[in-house]
Amino acid sequence: MMRTPGFRFEVHGHSGHARVGTLVTPHATVETPTFMPVGTQGAVKGVTAEEVLSTDAGIMLSNTYHLWLRPGAEVVRALGGLHTFARWPRAMLTDSGGFQVFSLSKLRTIDDEGVTFRSHLDGSLKRLTPEESIRVQSLLGADIAMAFDECPPGDADRDAVRRAMDRTTAWAKRCLAVPRGEQQALFGIAQGAIHEDLRHEHLAAIAELPFDGVALGGLSVGESVEDMHRILAAVAHTMPSDRPRYLMGVGTPRDLLVGSLLGIDMFDCVLPTRNARNGQALTWHGRVNIKQVRNRLDTGPIDPRCQGICCNGGTGTYSRGYLRHLYVAGEMVALRVLSIHNLHFLGELMKAMRQAIREGRAEAFVHDTLRAMREGDEVGPVDQNAMKNDPRAKKTT
Amino acid sequence: MMRTPGFRFEVHGHSGHARVGTLVTPHATVETPTFMPVGTQGAVKGVTAEEVLSTDAGIMLSNTYHLWLRPGAEVVRALGGLHTFARWPRAMLTDSGGFQVFSLSKLRTIDDEGVTFRSHLDGSLKRLTPEESIRVQSLLGADIAMAFDECPPGDADRDAVRRAMDRTTAWAKRCLAVPRGEQQALFGIAQGAIHEDLRHEHLAAIAELPFDGVALGGLSVGESVEDMHRILAAVAHTMPSDRPRYLMGVGTPRDLLVGSLLGIDMFDCVLPTRNARNGQALTWHGRVNIKQVRNRLDTGPIDPRCQGICCNGGTGTYSRGYLRHLYVAGEMVALRVLSIHNLHFLGELMKAMRQAIREGRAEAFVHDTLRAMREGDEVGPVDQNAMKNDPRAKKTT
Repeated sequence: MMRTPGFRFEVHGHSGHARVGTLVTPHATVETPTFMPVGTQGAVKGVTAEEVLSTDAGIMLSNTYHLWLRPGAEVVRALGGLHTFARWPRAMLTDSGGFQVFSLSKLRTIDDEGVTFRSHLDGSLKRLTPEESIRVQSLLGADIAMAFDECPPGDADRDAVRRAMDRTTAWAKRCLAVPRGEQQALFGIAQGAIHEDLRHEHLAAIAELPFDGVALGGLSVGESVEDMHRILAAVAHTMPSDRPRYLMGVGTPRDLLVGSLLGIDMFDCVLPTRNARNGQALTWHGRVNIKQVRNRLDTGPIDPRCQGICCNGGTGTYSRGYLRHLYVAGEMVALRVLSIHNLHFLGELMKAMRQAIREGRAEAFVHDTLRAMREGDEVGPVDQNAMKNDPRAKKTT
Repeated sequence: MMRTPGFRFEVHGHSGHARVGTLVTPHATVETPTFMPVGTQGAVKGVTAEEVLSTDAGIMLSNTYHLWLRPGAEVVRALGGLHTFARWPRAMLTDSGGFQVFSLSKLRTIDDEGVTFRSHLDGSLKRLTPEESIRVQSLLGADIAMAFDECPPGDADRDAVRRAMDRTTAWAKRCLAVPRGEQQALFGIAQGAIHEDLRHEHLAAIAELPFDGVALGGLSVGESVEDMHRILAAVAHTMPSDRPRYLMGVGTPRDLLVGSLLGIDMFDCVLPTRNARNGQALTWHGRVNIKQVRNRLDTGPIDPRCQGICCNGGTGTYSRGYLRHLYVAGEMVALRVLSIHNLHFLGELMKAMRQAIREGRAEAFVHDTLRAMREGDEVGPVDQNAMKNDPRAKKTT
């Protein structure tokens, strides 16, 4: 159960390991499994808060590292805190800043107390500790804060992974020991890379701490998709069943479905907006690359099944031909429309997954949906995880 | 009077030389004086059609040169014509392409038949003639097409200006002689630079031709503001009173008010969106530079008087502090919000001007409004016309 006042998590039904639930937070009641759009710097790239709302998102993630460096947590606080600042009325989650320190900053040195690094913006020397992370997240004032962890690289050896686990456990206790915002929940993060035994060991260590939720970190950071799915299959259903289970930095439509099927409740990723900026749309029949010549004279929408403002409604359809023209001509509107489309699609995908779980047909739904996506895919065999699994690409764009 | 079926222009009242009217087109009835947002490549930069509608715009301009080169007029036609292509339900006007040929292209050679030039996109050799311009505009299918003219540079000598006038008159007749789209009006363009006698002479030549409206070209192309206002004061009220009077490529809030006061009915300019991309907002109390440090902790909107979605409504105010952060952090949303704000402001400005004309107090309204804008201006003495009057900067961004 969640311990922070104002929070509640209830599981309403299962289909295999998959489950539907509600996550009650001070700003919103969120149906799970849910996908959280990422507002890296306090805004989802190219998309207004109203447009994010229109995609059915109940909770948004913002990056502590970015907001801490610019404009500064005190500035966000002076401007009313993260919800008022970003004009976002529903639930908000901030990460700890740790992932970006490890992936973006230069010249970082880790010790048991914390991490010293140079800002990627101006090279200034900064120091992040568990206490500072919670202090900053408290100033930002999201509904849910994350514990400060050490995320080892995807190719780290067992010894390095174990050291990161031990440090993460010690930091987790320090995060829990310092005061944070009223009505601000705190989730812990379990590491362990692609080693099943280490995953189980660290999950047990984190799960026994009084966190409001438990997250899996250190996945989708360079390991193979097979390794990620193997670890999820081994550990997701063993995570505390009475608290939200959060898979950080994931993902693709496939990984959202597979993760949900294996028992995960929450996801976040910049993929929908980053892929949009690369001209890629996500649909029920796979990926669309709007740049392709096949779209040049196409008067139809990205996806006839989509009921979003991107494909349906407003002053008329955004035809594939028009979107292709706007994209090729470098017009910002193309990136906006594709971003809204992708967020809308992931919202619809999670809604359909929840319905399938309620109706006890999660596995068949995932199987059929993935097959349709594979068969209708217009992008071809290039695996978008190649880019996705580069942590720098994943978190900076 | 307008001669093309489906079009009508009526003047309903005067205040001095200023006048209010309605321009009836197949897609919209537009109240004049009116400002036309510019959708250079078939979209107003950063802004959706729905958002342009929300700024009270009744007619939008698109650039023939840009759409002709990319995606091509035939492609726009195949995708349903400009209205369907761009999802714009109200009136549309296309320029002739001439201005961009003269300002953007390289290695152009003008002869009496037309202009040969190299595309600014790929260097390919292209040729634009009066006949080709009308053919392309007919394929695009805007409500109003413009005659193909020669626009001499702002510093051209009298002889060069006269040669351009004569050529423009000959081309005007050729434009009228070729078939164009059904229910597509055609406006003529008068040149003459900053020479009052030449302006009167060429205006007389163009006004006697059976155009549906008459435009002033060759202003706001590098001449001083004083010269532009002097020419407008001399000629605007002498333009045919029974047809719409269009001042091309203008402009600033000041020039919209002065132009309206002197008898102009229609304006277009990329200024509201281009300035937004430079961090500048237009308000009733002058210009706001969102980048300034004064905005860092400001929880208020750009303009408390503004009722647009930028300053009022939606999920909450965009505070100046948040917008400054987004702008400084390079977030697209800042450019969007400032663009919508500026378009909304110009819509409100024209609406207030029309009301002042109806009430017979146009001169006092312009005087008071310009004083308030001067006194409240936050940008300082730098004259934005310095950039604006560079035709390359004006039309390409």
